Amino acid sequence: MPTDKGSRTAILLDCDTGVDDTMAIMLACLSPEIELVGVGTIWGNVDRDLATQNTLNILAMCGRSDVPVAAGATTPLNGADVDYGYFVHGKDGQGNRGMKGKYGKSIEMSAAEFIVDSCRKRPGEIELVPVGPLTNIALALQLEPTLPKLVRGITIMGGAALAPGNVSPVAEANIWHDAEAASEVFLAQWPITMVGLDVTMRTLLTEEHFDRMRNGGGISKYMAQIAEFYTTFNQERSFGRRLSTMHDAVAVGLAANLVRAKVAPVVNVEVDTTDGPGRGQTICDLRGIYMNFPSQENAHCRVPLELEDGFPDFFTDLIVAAGEPAVNVE
Amino acid sequence: MPTDKGSRTAILLDCDTGVDDTMAIMLACLSPEIELVGVGTIWGNVDRDLATQNTLNILAMCGRSDVPVAAGATTPLNGADVDYGYFVHGKDGQGNRGMKGKYGKSIEMSAAEFIVDSCRKRPGEIELVPVGPLTNIALALQLEPTLPKLVRGITIMGGAALAPGNVSPVAEANIWHDAEAASEVFLAQWPITMVGLDVTMRTLLTEEHFDRMRNGGGISKYMAQIAEFYTTFNQERSFGRRLSTMHDAVAVGLAANLVRAKVAPVVNVEVDTTDGPGRGQTICDLRGIYMNFPSQENAHCRVPLELEDGFPDFFTDLIVAAGEPAVNVE
Repeated sequence: MPTDKGSRTAILLDCDTGVDDTMAIMLACLSPEIELVGVGTIWGNVDRDLATQNTLNILAMCGRSDVPVAAGATTPLNGADVDYGYFVHGKDGQGNRGMKGKYGKSIEMSAAEFIVDSCRKRPGEIELVPVGPLTNIALALQLEPTLPKLVRGITIMGGAALAPGNVSPVAEANIWHDAEAASEVFLAQWPITMVGLDVTMRTLLTEEHFDRMRNGGGISKYMAQIAEFYTTFNQERSFGRRLSTMHDAVAVGLAANLVRAKVAPVVNVEVDTTDGPGRGQTICDLRGIYMNFPSQENAHCRVPLELEDGFPDFFTDLIVAAGEPAVNVE
Repeated sequence: MPTDKGSRTAILLDCDTGVDDTMAIMLACLSPEIELVGVGTIWGNVDRDLATQNTLNILAMCGRSDVPVAAGATTPLNGADVDYGYFVHGKDGQGNRGMKGKYGKSIEMSAAEFIVDSCRKRPGEIELVPVGPLTNIALALQLEPTLPKLVRGITIMGGAALAPGNVSPVAEANIWHDAEAASEVFLAQWPITMVGLDVTMRTLLTEEHFDRMRNGGGISKYMAQIAEFYTTFNQERSFGRRLSTMHDAVAVGLAANLVRAKVAPVVNVEVDTTDGPGRGQTICDLRGIYMNFPSQENAHCRVPLELEDGFPDFFTDLIVAAGEPAVNVE
């Protein structure tokens, strides 16, 4: 597919495909502002193989089986045992309502190889958008240390600056899952946008949005169905009412300028890799908060703290307009 | 002095007497709602001996040389080298405008001994209000492990929950100065109120307040004079304009109910004692923020996040009404 460089953002996603990853993939497929270059997969919300099949299925549903999918890491860099987020995303990563069919096939390259290969072919053009643990990105950096010079930038769903964490009081799940990988990724000298819980816990789909999806075509119906389980988790764990986060989709939205940040200082960020109570925290230097965040030497991480309204409506409009799936979603 | 238990709060301060400690001592001396039981001193903003002399001088100025002052620790628990806050409080801890005279004398007991002794004499009555590093309190806990049962509670100026730190991106100075002591104090099973940067960086004296102090009697004039240097630090480091924090005074105000918290969940708090980038952070479990903070098992630390307005006005009124010093403040 030719790139209209004037308007479209070339995005390479990296997903541990659960429910909000599905939102992110759908958004990347459906938005005319985005060219989806490919998707790497990773363990996290679900195991790596399930993430891969879910990714392939969602792309097929959106009629985008042309998008290459590359399977990635199955453990964190340090090889530690992993724990998945089935209690959040359902045992199929699709709210226990996933598709029966299995569509498509991943490419031969690993996710890390695919990331490096894609960026070498189109230097300076691609925005990496990892929305799971950062293992594949760290591996890509090891394969190609000049990767930071080959990308447009990297927009990460992960971390928390001033907001509480979700795995621990201070750690967000994607960073916590592989703190060592995250540390390498944040240390690399590329323009990072850290889409953390500060904004993703405040950007919410309501039952009104889901009602609209239920009354839409098959794609939005599917979205509303898989989100039931996830919304129940959100209700019980976080909000006390039926609200749904859309974490990964917010990262895609910011990467493609589909939603804008109202407050987003560029600050130094360090990942806590100790074994102490702060492990997995993204320590953001926001001490400038009382005077509009004066610039910090060598800082290269933009941390959105507040977004413009309207993104959940935008997402709902797009998905409701998407019509019917290209494959059987039963 | 007899205690009117019906209305007055018995407070035992522990100070590293710089500028805002001076505000705290004056408030404790001047408020009819407070019975000031005594003051322990500690290194921190200044060295321990200077903290002691400053404390004695301020008490003398307020006509309260009857209040016992007990000198405390000169280093953190682990004996590490200390660094002081002269760049914040002036080389005399009084904005380089301190009193020439030296009034009074500390008692024979150490601060830790004095804390234990005072609480044993009046079990359940005293609110400890440490507003410097927590070394003296940790030493008192070592001397008397049942101390938590002997106090009314402990109100600490220190830490940061959702707000940025001031020594590091996440650590506040009092906790950072002796993280090991702070960890022991937060682990002890007593009712803690953690008056952190979340509220103290939002409770500010303006030039209007200082103008009123300058036009008041000798005590408020002195306060305005010593705060000049401190306000300049606040301006340069934090606010970009002439605003002054009053950290330690806010802790005294909350301890004596002179100001009330609008939001103050009781949550689990852990101090980071690693040597990582989170060292000295007070890790507060505020994950309940999205549903009005459901109760947490065994939590015993109240963390004010928002205060009622008006405390800077209240403080200014009190100090302006205080009239003339009881000793020569030149």
